[in-house]
Amino acid sequence: MKKKTVMIEDIFVLPRQFRAAGVCAGIKKSGARDMAMLVSDVPGTAVAGTFTTNQVKAASVKICMKRITSGKGRAVVINSGNANACTGVQGEHDAEAMAAATAKATGVPVSQVYVSSTGHIGARLPMDIILPGIDSLAAHLSDQNGMDAVHGIMTTDNGPKYGTVKLKIDGKPVIVSVMCKGAGMIEPNMATMLCYMLTDAAVDPKALAATLKAAVRESFNRISVDGDMSTNDTVLLFANGAAGNKTLKPGHPGWNAFASVVLALCQKMAWKIIRDGEGAKKVIKVEVVGARTEKEADIAARSVANSLLVKTSWHNDYPNFGRIMDALGYSAAKIVENKVDIRYDGKLLVKGGLRTKIDVEEIKVIQRQELFTIAINLHLGKGTSHVFSCDCAHAYIDINI
Amino acid sequence: MKKKTVMIEDIFVLPRQFRAAGVCAGIKKSGARDMAMLVSDVPGTAVAGTFTTNQVKAASVKICMKRITSGKGRAVVINSGNANACTGVQGEHDAEAMAAATAKATGVPVSQVYVSSTGHIGARLPMDIILPGIDSLAAHLSDQNGMDAVHGIMTTDNGPKYGTVKLKIDGKPVIVSVMCKGAGMIEPNMATMLCYMLTDAAVDPKALAATLKAAVRESFNRISVDGDMSTNDTVLLFANGAAGNKTLKPGHPGWNAFASVVLALCQKMAWKIIRDGEGAKKVIKVEVVGARTEKEADIAARSVANSLLVKTSWHNDYPNFGRIMDALGYSAAKIVENKVDIRYDGKLLVKGGLRTKIDVEEIKVIQRQELFTIAINLHLGKGTSHVFSCDCAHAYIDINI
Repeated sequence: MKKKTVMIEDIFVLPRQFRAAGVCAGIKKSGARDMAMLVSDVPGTAVAGTFTTNQVKAASVKICMKRITSGKGRAVVINSGNANACTGVQGEHDAEAMAAATAKATGVPVSQVYVSSTGHIGARLPMDIILPGIDSLAAHLSDQNGMDAVHGIMTTDNGPKYGTVKLKIDGKPVIVSVMCKGAGMIEPNMATMLCYMLTDAAVDPKALAATLKAAVRESFNRISVDGDMSTNDTVLLFANGAAGNKTLKPGHPGWNAFASVVLALCQKMAWKIIRDGEGAKKVIKVEVVGARTEKEADIAARSVANSLLVKTSWHNDYPNFGRIMDALGYSAAKIVENKVDIRYDGKLLVKGGLRTKIDVEEIKVIQRQELFTIAINLHLGKGTSHVFSCDCAHAYIDINI
Repeated sequence: MKKKTVMIEDIFVLPRQFRAAGVCAGIKKSGARDMAMLVSDVPGTAVAGTFTTNQVKAASVKICMKRITSGKGRAVVINSGNANACTGVQGEHDAEAMAAATAKATGVPVSQVYVSSTGHIGARLPMDIILPGIDSLAAHLSDQNGMDAVHGIMTTDNGPKYGTVKLKIDGKPVIVSVMCKGAGMIEPNMATMLCYMLTDAAVDPKALAATLKAAVRESFNRISVDGDMSTNDTVLLFANGAAGNKTLKPGHPGWNAFASVVLALCQKMAWKIIRDGEGAKKVIKVEVVGARTEKEADIAARSVANSLLVKTSWHNDYPNFGRIMDALGYSAAKIVENKVDIRYDGKLLVKGGLRTKIDVEEIKVIQRQELFTIAINLHLGKGTSHVFSCDCAHAYIDINI
């Protein structure tokens, strides 16, 4: 998933003129960090965002979606432990109160404060804990506290997820950093993928929005842990221009490099989420080519990637291609049985809908790997797509009952 | 699911002029019965059928679909242990060879012999075992051997599934019997729901087809074990007229009673399949009312019933309504969050998208039951639908890896 040309460092560096904080406010009974804040000190910082397409949206998502049309944003405040979803008008009031408290504590205009929540659905936010937490966050804001923020947004993640890329644009050093949480919608009552990217590059707001949308499409939207889409998913990308480059947009000689970095960071985070998914041990790339259209390729790939029977079979090493054929067959994509080829890491197991003579042991070796590709050719057209999935094991049930 | 007015006896009685057999041909390594045959001795016996809508169809399904348009059929031969799916032209030749051998051994015209297979996908039928098996079946045909046939079609079922209804039409005693197999598409490489209904009533072929289609729609098509649709699903209903009634069709005074019996038997079998599903302990009726259209009600109900997160939560007693809201929200049905009501066996847990004040213990008691109803009102229109689902437990994984 990672482009070879982009070197991602396994650190979380705050770009120039960004500060961060993460505190233990007391929402989580465990005493772990449960709130985080990111602030840009540059007025006019650009922001782009993508949000869940679920019709049921958390209050925080609703208020972010209102603000994002301005293209401006300087702060985000995040709590874990409570999703503030299915909380109605009260939930929106509470989310706005979080934004107002953050504005008051940081001096950022309230219209430029974004809010995220993740955790239990259906209960009101504990505002008596959250509001003091916001004051504590503001007091701890520092250009040294990036990792505190990273830990403040974690819920069921096995580990923190972050990365930094350093590049030069117009001869100026530029930093793009990302922090992320999510491991499928897996914990009891937990949900959500949250991702925040920060850069000190100057970027045209429209170009920023377009490149983020394209990157999300080729990263987070191509992973499938369990087919369940959260009410809270949020990706925000802040660009404050502190690096002093000429404003990036298509046509600028550094534009492609910047867009590649955004994509690579999104793909890296998506990869970390699926590796962290629901107790899974393997990542499987399901690739479909030769569909009638790109949309049908996508439908076919997702039908295979989301099939509980297929995912369960991946847990073991036997290549159960019958279940793959079955999942293709019941998808809404057009399939002609006797045209379907299926390859495991390039080895042809199914040709024209029929099993080849290949020794099953050759495929078993592939399916035992932590990562392998199942490439399906429908031979009906030029539509292609792919999606990353994972196996389904006992741990998924353990985590979710 | 069972209509109170229809009394289903827990026996499998062959109606007049039907014979059956079930043998251990040797396909299954375990030595269990693995082939079955049902034959009507009345020329001109009517038959109706419904088949999987999966685009990948077993060879046996393909040849059944060709024959069913005639509305005539007197025999069906069934093997378990091998699905004869994804077997190409060779598979169709083998299925036709099964029909030809059955025709030769029984004297039934080959065009009136139907074939079913269930088991491993992607391997050629062992014809050296199947063809002698057919001769053995023909030799054992008897009006006393119904239960042998019932056992001959079982694969991963925990127990045989069958039932008989006796009624009077035109003052004549009529029998309608059913045998069925299926427990989700659950065993490694196994698949398929198979159901055969036999009656000695005389029924108009078009009316027979219509009533079967309607009954299947309200029974087998309303259960969801894992959302995976098999390549081999088949339901056949034979009516040989040996009871001597006037031909049943709409307008006949006995028509409604007959149609109710067909529906009740299908619902009983569907119920047995879902109770037998994938190690599940509970059956949950997911009911949606107030959708914009019936189709959207169906989409919403299935989105909830097939959500792995929702199904896993049912394994425990905590009513995780957030996951239900989430699954409604990402479905293709229109949802307005603040209009949604959710009831557990009539008790209101969610009103206008918000949790009510009801004590969670009241709902936990309901969710601990083996059967309960989750009724969702979308308050957007008059569309209604329902589907029966089950919880997802460790046993599902154990059976499928």
